[in-house]
Amino acid sequence: MTSRLAVVGLGPGAVEWRTPEATARLAAATDLVGYGPYLRMVGPLDPPPVQHEFDNREEAERARFALDLAADGRDVVVVSSGDPGVFAMATAVVEELHRQEPARYAAVELTIVPGITAAAAAAARVGAPLGHDFCCLSLSDVLKPWPVVERRLGAVGAADLVVALYNPISRHRPWQLSRAIEILRTYRPAGTPVVVARDVGRPDEKVRTTTLGAFTDADADMRTVVIVGSTTTREFTDAHGRAWVYTPRTYPDAPA
Amino acid sequence: MTSRLAVVGLGPGAVEWRTPEATARLAAATDLVGYGPYLRMVGPLDPPPVQHEFDNREEAERARFALDLAADGRDVVVVSSGDPGVFAMATAVVEELHRQEPARYAAVELTIVPGITAAAAAAARVGAPLGHDFCCLSLSDVLKPWPVVERRLGAVGAADLVVALYNPISRHRPWQLSRAIEILRTYRPAGTPVVVARDVGRPDEKVRTTTLGAFTDADADMRTVVIVGSTTTREFTDAHGRAWVYTPRTYPDAPA
Repeated sequence: MTSRLAVVGLGPGAVEWRTPEATARLAAATDLVGYGPYLRMVGPLDPPPVQHEFDNREEAERARFALDLAADGRDVVVVSSGDPGVFAMATAVVEELHRQEPARYAAVELTIVPGITAAAAAAARVGAPLGHDFCCLSLSDVLKPWPVVERRLGAVGAADLVVALYNPISRHRPWQLSRAIEILRTYRPAGTPVVVARDVGRPDEKVRTTTLGAFTDADADMRTVVIVGSTTTREFTDAHGRAWVYTPRTYPDAPA
Repeated sequence: MTSRLAVVGLGPGAVEWRTPEATARLAAATDLVGYGPYLRMVGPLDPPPVQHEFDNREEAERARFALDLAADGRDVVVVSSGDPGVFAMATAVVEELHRQEPARYAAVELTIVPGITAAAAAAARVGAPLGHDFCCLSLSDVLKPWPVVERRLGAVGAADLVVALYNPISRHRPWQLSRAIEILRTYRPAGTPVVVARDVGRPDEKVRTTTLGAFTDADADMRTVVIVGSTTTREFTDAHGRAWVYTPRTYPDAPA
């Protein structure tokens, strides 16, 4: 009996960004549990594990199912994209462990396998916009009230942190990203660099840089991460016309 | 002539957390540039590249040296621990590229290779404290004025973000960590979980959980990351006495 459960971060998608620990746990797994698109990101495994596909919203059920499967003696991997600890499945699994009687899952050896999160991958593509103090905020108001999101945007806007926005927009949440940008515009100049990165590390990768003033949400979706610079974030174009964005580690004496 | 420069994140230390892209760039390199302890984290390479060791503080010089070496036709890797885009060398290299005439480094193909950052690794060891909105702040006041740090701690304290503190303490900055904790205590209950993680993914790894009320900086140093929970972060102990910390994705209707 193995009774292992790993919540594995695949990273953004590219196999070159998947850690050896993630690869090893996938190779050893008898069962994979996950949202369909993430299961398909895994790629072929030999022998193929049993795949248990879940809808993206059924996080608590997915977590309990995976824990139960591991308790039954299986070697289970819950698949996440990016880092499972950032707006992803690690929290759901640990919360489910907490919710049950301690004895129920005493046999399960639980491991969280970290991965490269979307903001880090997007940042790497354009330079180093996260090189100084920053925050990661989810714009989804499915699990938290929108006034909390607005309050946080105001606080980090005033504190001049670089902001990485996860889950920026979806069919059911069409206006939140524009509203978030509007709030940040009240704290930062129109020329502040913004990075819009979709599907980084996947075949359809598209990364563009714009400014807070010129930003539109036209090509953003749930697979996009948006990074809004601070007042010290700079953009420039190299000899080949490629745009670079970075936030210096040095912060001026007179804060903006 | 190769003329390549990669700023590579080794991840926290363990080879199982180093991405294949990082491994490939290290294997192809003619020259490694870095702070001594990071160069020694790389491990043996065959054939061994030339190693150029720098002091930790000489970031701009190190960046220029690496760019010059690449412009001379070498295949250069600047070595960072964790993610080079988070309080590390990617910013220094991109800033140096910006500072010079575009033509000077036109031949250099620059790539930032992301890695698992220290906060993500620390989080994975205890569960998922970064599962909801969070920020990463450096407590070093070498490159930014301390009042900026205090203002940011107040803002993220009030906004109830989970806080990951990088560069929390050093021989030359002995009081800043205690002061930061004191500020966060004014916003959060004494029972708020705190994770103190040192050398995660290295042989001397030490991770402990405590609370905001009981926190002391006794065993923290520059190789430590400190994660301070929000008002919703929870801690519990499993059937084997192991402590888990997580921040649920759900945020209550009435914010604290």
